[in-house]
Amino acid sequence: MDPNKLEQLREEVDQVNLRILDLINKRGELIKQIGDIKTHQGINVFDPLREREMLDLIIKNHEGPFEYSTIEHLFKEVFKAAKELIEEDQLNALLV
Amino acid sequence: MDPNKLEQLREEVDQVNLRILDLINKRGELIKQIGDIKTHQGINVFDPLREREMLDLIIKNHEGPFEYSTIEHLFKEVFKAAKELIEEDQLNALLV
Repeated sequence: MDPNKLEQLREEVDQVNLRILDLINKRGELIKQIGDIKTHQGINVFDPLREREMLDLIIKNHEGPFEYSTIEHLFKEVFKAAKELIEEDQLNALLV
Repeated sequence: MDPNKLEQLREEVDQVNLRILDLINKRGELIKQIGDIKTHQGINVFDPLREREMLDLIIKNHEGPFEYSTIEHLFKEVFKAAKELIEEDQLNALLV
């Protein structure tokens, strides 16, 4: 076994981490834009049906190695973070 | 405002979700390979220092819109899922 294999795999994990980070932040920016539009149109910002729809699409495309329940849990955490981000945004809008 | 803008943003979010899903699973495969090498070499599979090192690199590259604490929380959940995946793998190896 190549002694550098472990180091190489770790570097790959670091690169994957940074790509996940980038996408989570990109997702945050998109969700903020959606929140702005909905607030402007007077629509309720949080939509549990839309959340279920997103999860269904994710689960449909999931092929492992993680369990479905793990993927669902991770994305629910991502959704929760986005919800907090919008709430913070709305609070800041009220304060100015 | 373009009435389709909301729909377009939702489609972008769906695409970002699927890219995150893909990377989480790719990360799982890499972590499994690392676990195999470490088990083979008799090294302890879980390394809290390495976890801190990964988080430091992530935080260093983070530019928002999320709080650092949110990003740290999300990645700790991702790390936890990977840890469970390896433990499951090792349990299966013991059972065969």
